[in-house]
Amino acid sequence: MEAFTASIDVDARLWEADLRGSIAHARMLGAVGVVSAEESQALIRGLEAVRDDISAGRATFAPTAEDVHSEIERLLKEKLGPVAGKLHTARSRNDQVATATRLYARDQVDAMAAEVNALQTTLVGLAQAHLDTALPGLTHLQHAQPVSLAHHLLAYFWMLDRDRGRLADARVRLNQSPLGSAALAGTPFPVDREMTARELGFQGVIPNSLDAVSDRDFVVEILNACALVMTHLSRLAEELVVWSTPEFGFVELDDTVTTGSSIMPQKKNPDVAELVRGRTGRAYGALMGALTLLKGLPLSYNRDLQEDKGLLFQGLDSARACVRMTALMLERARFGVTRMAQALEGDFSNATDLADYLARKGLPFREAHAVVGQIVRHCLGEKVALEALALAELQRFSPLIQADVKPLLHPKAVLAARKSQGGAAPDAVRVQLALAQKRLGA
Amino acid sequence: MEAFTASIDVDARLWEADLRGSIAHARMLGAVGVVSAEESQALIRGLEAVRDDISAGRATFAPTAEDVHSEIERLLKEKLGPVAGKLHTARSRNDQVATATRLYARDQVDAMAAEVNALQTTLVGLAQAHLDTALPGLTHLQHAQPVSLAHHLLAYFWMLDRDRGRLADARVRLNQSPLGSAALAGTPFPVDREMTARELGFQGVIPNSLDAVSDRDFVVEILNACALVMTHLSRLAEELVVWSTPEFGFVELDDTVTTGSSIMPQKKNPDVAELVRGRTGRAYGALMGALTLLKGLPLSYNRDLQEDKGLLFQGLDSARACVRMTALMLERARFGVTRMAQALEGDFSNATDLADYLARKGLPFREAHAVVGQIVRHCLGEKVALEALALAELQRFSPLIQADVKPLLHPKAVLAARKSQGGAAPDAVRVQLALAQKRLGA
Amino acid sequence: MEAFTASIDVDARLWEADLRGSIAHARMLGAVGVVSAEESQALIRGLEAVRDDISAGRATFAPTAEDVHSEIERLLKEKLGPVAGKLHTARSRNDQVATATRLYARDQVDAMAAEVNALQTTLVGLAQAHLDTALPGLTHLQHAQPVSLAHHLLAYFWMLDRDRGRLADARVRLNQSPLGSAALAGTPFPVDREMTARELGFQGVIPNSLDAVSDRDFVVEILNACALVMTHLSRLAEELVVWSTPEFGFVELDDTVTTGSSIMPQKKNPDVAELVRGRTGRAYGALMGALTLLKGLPLSYNRDLQEDKGLLFQGLDSARACVRMTALMLERARFGVTRMAQALEGDFSNATDLADYLARKGLPFREAHAVVGQIVRHCLGEKVALEALALAELQRFSPLIQADVKPLLHPKAVLAARKSQGGAAPDAVRVQLALAQKRLGA
Amino acid sequence: MEAFTASIDVDARLWEADLRGSIAHARMLGAVGVVSAEESQALIRGLEAVRDDISAGRATFAPTAEDVHSEIERLLKEKLGPVAGKLHTARSRNDQVATATRLYARDQVDAMAAEVNALQTTLVGLAQAHLDTALPGLTHLQHAQPVSLAHHLLAYFWMLDRDRGRLADARVRLNQSPLGSAALAGTPFPVDREMTARELGFQGVIPNSLDAVSDRDFVVEILNACALVMTHLSRLAEELVVWSTPEFGFVELDDTVTTGSSIMPQKKNPDVAELVRGRTGRAYGALMGALTLLKGLPLSYNRDLQEDKGLLFQGLDSARACVRMTALMLERARFGVTRMAQALEGDFSNATDLADYLARKGLPFREAHAVVGQIVRHCLGEKVALEALALAELQRFSPLIQADVKPLLHPKAVLAARKSQGGAAPDAVRVQLALAQKRLGA
Repeated sequence: MEAFTASIDVDARLWEADLRGSIAHARMLGAVGVVSAEESQALIRGLEAVRDDISAGRATFAPTAEDVHSEIERLLKEKLGPVAGKLHTARSRNDQVATATRLYARDQVDAMAAEVNALQTTLVGLAQAHLDTALPGLTHLQHAQPVSLAHHLLAYFWMLDRDRGRLADARVRLNQSPLGSAALAGTPFPVDREMTARELGFQGVIPNSLDAVSDRDFVVEILNACALVMTHLSRLAEELVVWSTPEFGFVELDDTVTTGSSIMPQKKNPDVAELVRGRTGRAYGALMGALTLLKGLPLSYNRDLQEDKGLLFQGLDSARACVRMTALMLERARFGVTRMAQALEGDFSNATDLADYLARKGLPFREAHAVVGQIVRHCLGEKVALEALALAELQRFSPLIQADVKPLLHPKAVLAARKSQGGAAPDAVRVQLALAQKRLGA
Repeated sequence: MEAFTASIDVDARLWEADLRGSIAHARMLGAVGVVSAEESQALIRGLEAVRDDISAGRATFAPTAEDVHSEIERLLKEKLGPVAGKLHTARSRNDQVATATRLYARDQVDAMAAEVNALQTTLVGLAQAHLDTALPGLTHLQHAQPVSLAHHLLAYFWMLDRDRGRLADARVRLNQSPLGSAALAGTPFPVDREMTARELGFQGVIPNSLDAVSDRDFVVEILNACALVMTHLSRLAEELVVWSTPEFGFVELDDTVTTGSSIMPQKKNPDVAELVRGRTGRAYGALMGALTLLKGLPLSYNRDLQEDKGLLFQGLDSARACVRMTALMLERARFGVTRMAQALEGDFSNATDLADYLARKGLPFREAHAVVGQIVRHCLGEKVALEALALAELQRFSPLIQADVKPLLHPKAVLAARKSQGGAAPDAVRVQLALAQKRLGA
Repeated sequence: MEAFTASIDVDARLWEADLRGSIAHARMLGAVGVVSAEESQALIRGLEAVRDDISAGRATFAPTAEDVHSEIERLLKEKLGPVAGKLHTARSRNDQVATATRLYARDQVDAMAAEVNALQTTLVGLAQAHLDTALPGLTHLQHAQPVSLAHHLLAYFWMLDRDRGRLADARVRLNQSPLGSAALAGTPFPVDREMTARELGFQGVIPNSLDAVSDRDFVVEILNACALVMTHLSRLAEELVVWSTPEFGFVELDDTVTTGSSIMPQKKNPDVAELVRGRTGRAYGALMGALTLLKGLPLSYNRDLQEDKGLLFQGLDSARACVRMTALMLERARFGVTRMAQALEGDFSNATDLADYLARKGLPFREAHAVVGQIVRHCLGEKVALEALALAELQRFSPLIQADVKPLLHPKAVLAARKSQGGAAPDAVRVQLALAQKRLGA
Repeated sequence: MEAFTASIDVDARLWEADLRGSIAHARMLGAVGVVSAEESQALIRGLEAVRDDISAGRATFAPTAEDVHSEIERLLKEKLGPVAGKLHTARSRNDQVATATRLYARDQVDAMAAEVNALQTTLVGLAQAHLDTALPGLTHLQHAQPVSLAHHLLAYFWMLDRDRGRLADARVRLNQSPLGSAALAGTPFPVDREMTARELGFQGVIPNSLDAVSDRDFVVEILNACALVMTHLSRLAEELVVWSTPEFGFVELDDTVTTGSSIMPQKKNPDVAELVRGRTGRAYGALMGALTLLKGLPLSYNRDLQEDKGLLFQGLDSARACVRMTALMLERARFGVTRMAQALEGDFSNATDLADYLARKGLPFREAHAVVGQIVRHCLGEKVALEALALAELQRFSPLIQADVKPLLHPKAVLAARKSQGGAAPDAVRVQLALAQKRLGA
């Protein structure tokens, strides 16, 4: 029974946040005169000593303890004797736990955002190096039009940028202090909630005590941000897996992120990319778990809420590790620049440009399309690339085609033409890259 | 096969947004000289005429059509003839659909936020009327301490306020223009993406064309905001169901939101509250569906993405209707003010205040608790309320108890004492209410 | 990187299942002559020695090891030297892991089914004791018609019975041997898959080697069975929470499954019931995680599949503990038999029976309903119970009402009348109970 | 408000099942004497007439009606007048809806199982045609060992076979009659539940009336079966998308299941495969929605349960259409047999066989691996296939290698060697195929 209700295995990691909250509370109790200045000082010193003891490994938690808060209470009592009990004046376990969880979650969100930022930095670095590396841009996993590797990687930069935005927004909403809400209804003691909020770095106090002890929106919101981070990483991981195949050969992942066998040294299994893709399940599952937990819960605190932490930590830990691993994979990847270039040869991703050429020469749009369709079909039959077709051959399909068409059909030219804002042309990507670098700085 | 791939039954509602996007595109094509000024004007007038026809019911979509975009293309062609085809210059179905979906989603987010705002207004109105209505505040569904109905209802105000915040944040991130990204790589035409973005009310352009056509974060983000709205409504609905029981009797829901039977006129089933609670499943399901859809999708556009709209509409429609129904339920509810007051009598939610009294008289905290515990046990045995116990009886447990204790033990006094910031006391709730009204104005 | 890919913290618990699989494989290798009889014997003895060492705590796993399988390989090599390597003939890590996971899952499904069975036994025992305990049967949480506590509890018996059925069905499908499928394509060695399947208690061999190494349906299927178990427990937990309120007072949970405070000894918080309800989130989350993991995975083995075990264990462990805790809660619960009886007094759950009475006297159905509606309204106005209304009063509404109506309106009589098959009448419940006991025996 | 609570748009499709249930109920009422034989006959004839009217389009449902059951009640009353009201004797909306939903769900499960069976038949047909079509078997999307296309496709056969098993198991559990349970507690009327169960094809009656009206396990169980069907289809769809790329070229999908453009006739987008993959989200979402809906619901009927049908139909409809589309895709697919064969040339998937050869010649296993690793590395450096290396070259690495090694290294030989039970060798697959055919017949 006790094992069932205990949470020390999950919440032990809150110890530092719990102590931070308690120190702020002890200081405030002294400031408003609920405890004497001496008692306040004694409590603060005691809490700091407990912190030092835990940090140094001198104090440990009993694995059979109920939770981290009762263990810290025990350690403080061992240090201070009965005065330790004064810490719990004008505070209940409900607002105490909510405070510690928010402080911890805030740190974790910051750490996560920093990790995402690091991955974005990696992407920007790679984009700089691959401004002129052309590869087939795909729709439906089919060759569509050439893009540069820089452009492709920067697409992930912007996804991650939205992820950072979501983390930042979640942080604002979670960074409100529940401390001083007591069990559910506030307290008759003249607590100064603004003071503790300030000391703890909160941007304000939660305006309603019932909401303060029962709100777990921030858990769901963080888990949703993590779920989208994992969505993005799963897309990139999928691409790394596909690109690693001998058929594509667009990337060779480093030995440190792949597994092989002594007998088949050519077979490099993209295990880390697969694990990142697979761990998307953990993130989605944690989100769904948190929502389920909250569905239909009446006000105010209910013990169901204890389940929030396991789900939150599971989602955060896993997503953060995946962001880091993705950065490592990319940093050490060797991109198959030659294979990418070869893949563009004769893939007809220049067909649209030939149609545009004809349109500029005055042929109506639909007719231009029809003509190009015939030419492509001819090429397929002859197994010849569009750009390799002799001018005379091209002219058999339309007299409008002149020698000036040839340079337009080279993959590099096709790429360079897409210079609309946000487009794949190196010129446009250079502008995009500058924008990305500015975002990183911000 | 065509029925399987068609989406007209789902995306028909995008028609107005699609036309808005097309008009902006047509104007821009003229401004940058890709089409002539006359052609641009003709396209715009044609699109406006199609809009009028659809609005007036003169034009309808074939149920067997592929999607709303092809139907509008057909209608425009019927109006304009071949020049209609010029509209598709420098644009692909991919950026066109992304644009229309974002415009529509933006309108829906605004409508949803307005609905949430209206519910908040209802809550504020009720809170004003019930500042002095006391009822048992519950933890674990057990009586804990008295709160006011105003305080209880305002807890939901703040939940909804975070919901509005999430909707607003989602709106910022979605309100970026994909238009001009073409199929995936931008376009060789000299499009002015800033111009179309401005006309369509976007706050900027998406900086990467691959991201522009494949990003559906905004769908997930809106669905997550809806899921949390539904979480909150499910909590309130649960309370209305429990409060409606004869055992609680804290609320009587209006006949318009309940069902009864001719034979048992006393039995009012809280069907609307139950449906709101049940529809939480739709919202969670739509969110999980959207995440599943995106997991592991390589860049850029894949047809899987067509599934985004059904899930988005399902989540939004259902959540919005539930917000409105909840407002109706509350506006017409008759709260059981007398039953609430009776529930506080003898429920020992004043026990803490007696302990505080003893502590103020100098008794150490833990001892005060022990003494009060004994008194409560005595009351339970004698089936007498704590506040009804004679002074002499109280004094048998502690000589520190004097006549001044009696006024402190009345529920109203217990409530009034919780005047810490954000607490349940009417004085504190008045401050909270002013804050809420200020938020509504904002 | 190694910490990211390692799974020893999750899969250590597979050690015994892994050894069982290896012993069967070693015996088979000897039987078909792939290794000599002596080598086979040496391998088996070595594996048994490793098993004894781990059981006795003499051998432990390095926390930094990759997984349990490599650790067992290491331990065996320490025992046997180079011959240990022969164990891996005609087997790959892929079929080895699939085998161990299935063996472990089978044991867990059996343990879970036994736990469910124990809870069913508890319910049957309580039903026997409460055949005549009447309480209001609720629809929409409103009083509808009287039922017995036995009938109410047996409703959960049948839910759990379906749960056992699902576990049994899942067991049949998972109980197929993947061993001998090697990496993905089978093996050139003349393995006898039927022999190892038999030794390991499998009911057959998986007919396709690709499917054998990549199938994780059984994980999803078990997690779905757990999710439904948790659905049922969450419904019961919700009822225990509601019934525990002072307003209902239908149950008093034991001190061992509630928490209280020294100061409010009357407040017993139903923490265990709330935790059971809250842990539904874990189960749903694990299920969603497993489905997400599998979505869109190409054949055959992919490293993503490593994630299956964490989700499976999380769902199984949590659900099993919840089943046990629910049994404990019920065994020790004191049902508020008197409060239940009082709740039926004057709750008009006998209104239908009065209408039936009138119908039997010849009044058309709809008219009978209308008459009873008027009577109930009258009672509500007068605050009198229907069964307490004087005969003369009743006759004012219909002359068909005679003295013989009075005994029919008592809750016990109303209950006794519902003797249709599966109905709430004690006579019907006795039959149902016998059926339940027969199921338990089966 | 009415639009919010109405369900006619969702449940209209239950009309035939509802009538079936009513006819059985009417017949039983007559048989047990609750209504007269004439009344029973009149009711049955009236219900049959309503059925004919709806079938023939002579009667339609008002779009603003509450639900299908009230509409059928209205139609019957129009036919029969007041006697129509007798149909509702000894029955409530609660057991009526549960009965109709189960009947409909049973039909749908049967239809789904038949569709799955048809897809299995397609797979068996293709397997027969491709027993000797070799392609690289993949792990981690990397070439591992050769398999046959028959073997690969049959892996899906067995997945679908488990799906059929799950549908069959769900059918058994759902095929129990709730009819006669009335609102929640049974009925005083002497109903014969076995009789109606028999007429309606149920295998028994639900033994507890509370359970009968509140059980929705079957909805979750069917949706879980659908979720796994979609998991399997998403895996196959993913493979079809990857195989369709020019890089792989293992399949060319038919024009009817792809989209292309006039200008790029070579680009065939696998839209149907992508939509199947994307619709996995609908199935997972519907499952999660149904679980959410049921979490924490107290007994017995609550209006939340109305939400079950929308989710059930969404999951079933979508999954069934996807099964059918997958069969069409496969039937019309042209497999790239030549490309598959080419992919095996020089892919070193014969490396294990060379090691086995050395092991058979007496070289210890680990040494054999090391030697082969060196040879493969040499081949990679020289860009030569292992099977193309001259004997003399091979012998430079080990004198144990003789001329007899050469035939063993050909892909066909490597494939043929894997003849263990369930293995990839044509001989083994022939046995597997016979097993599959036997299952289809069953």
